Amino acid sequence: MPSESNHIVSAFDEDLRQMDNFIAEMGGLAEHQFADSIKALIARDSELAERVIGNDHRIDELEHLVDAHTISMLALRQPMADDLRVVITALRIASLIERIGDYAKNISKRTVAITQTPPVGPSRTISRMGVVVQGMIKTVLDAYLQRDADLAEDVRQRDEEVDALHTSLFRELLTYMMEDPRSISACTHLLFVAKNIERIGDHATNIAENVHFLVHGKLPEEPRPKGDESSYTVIGGDD
Amino acid sequence: MPSESNHIVSAFDEDLRQMDNFIAEMGGLAEHQFADSIKALIARDSELAERVIGNDHRIDELEHLVDAHTISMLALRQPMADDLRVVITALRIASLIERIGDYAKNISKRTVAITQTPPVGPSRTISRMGVVVQGMIKTVLDAYLQRDADLAEDVRQRDEEVDALHTSLFRELLTYMMEDPRSISACTHLLFVAKNIERIGDHATNIAENVHFLVHGKLPEEPRPKGDESSYTVIGGDD
Repeated sequence: MPSESNHIVSAFDEDLRQMDNFIAEMGGLAEHQFADSIKALIARDSELAERVIGNDHRIDELEHLVDAHTISMLALRQPMADDLRVVITALRIASLIERIGDYAKNISKRTVAITQTPPVGPSRTISRMGVVVQGMIKTVLDAYLQRDADLAEDVRQRDEEVDALHTSLFRELLTYMMEDPRSISACTHLLFVAKNIERIGDHATNIAENVHFLVHGKLPEEPRPKGDESSYTVIGGDD
Repeated sequence: MPSESNHIVSAFDEDLRQMDNFIAEMGGLAEHQFADSIKALIARDSELAERVIGNDHRIDELEHLVDAHTISMLALRQPMADDLRVVITALRIASLIERIGDYAKNISKRTVAITQTPPVGPSRTISRMGVVVQGMIKTVLDAYLQRDADLAEDVRQRDEEVDALHTSLFRELLTYMMEDPRSISACTHLLFVAKNIERIGDHATNIAENVHFLVHGKLPEEPRPKGDESSYTVIGGDD
């Protein structure tokens, strides 16, 4: 990676390469965990869900390594200006990836519960959300590793579709529960699954904003497109 | 605050005092926002809920100030060892407080939706959760500002009660929806409100663990008591 501060290939650059390796590994794991969590949900595969739950600690461990590596870089290299921004951004991105891993784990916990209930409704919208969000995670990791702010902006724009799908799924699930109260347990967990996927999209978007900050030294000026209205959604119940 | 590195009262100490002022202000605001969000929910007061939503940006702004202040401290003071730990911990705590503010805001968005539906059931458990979690926020801020690891441990222990209340509330709300499908819209938002309160408890606990790290230089050894089983909970629906 070319650095603006023009220092020669140094101990700092070596440390930074190691940092990016940690983040690439964390990100790859999180992407994989999320994909598996959706696969397990759709296939009602509780064994795969249990594996996702069991694997989350590997992402947590990598985050601890990033934390320790950051503190050691700050202490030993005493970076200034641009380099400092790079280190702090990496720390933030690692924390966001760790949270993506947590959401995937929670989707899998709920999948274990869902497999104990009869199959219900609208998995197509969930699949669609899963596909879009998985693409966002993959692209934003590339954007970070290539320091590509345009690619990051592309991820930011995709979040709107996720929010719209989430709002529509929220309404769909409420309607479903009203029509068939026996589906309430399963649909409630699906509501939280949908929320988790939406939050993963938010976190990919946050990572994208950090990539913008890394490249341009400031946050994006255009406000993020907002489409998630689910917190305000009310269906029926007015009688 | 006595510093182990024995430096005299310095520019670094001044900077640190400013950092703690920011965090005290952020934390006080978050505590207040959360209290108001619960008050608005219980009183079905959508105006107060709207005020909470409108005030959240003040916490976000303070977090940006903390970020900028951190980067300037790292660049200008080049802190080592213990001092570095103090700065990084403050940065993490600010991020956790900002998220507590986000959860309070989301509780208020859902309160706006809930006030458009007929009143439903179990607000007593929510009140109880609210009281416990509000106490946790207050105590953990004191623990941070006084660098008191014992007080922080006390907060960590209280999280178990919050998790147990949350699991029981989750079951209660599911049962309620099954008995009266007209309550589904409102109860769904209450499920998310309950989850938000539980998450705020988790974040107070995370702050407590950061205080432990700040005082002792390592994370608590005893694993955090875990009691939230709501992600695995299934009620009925097996016919």
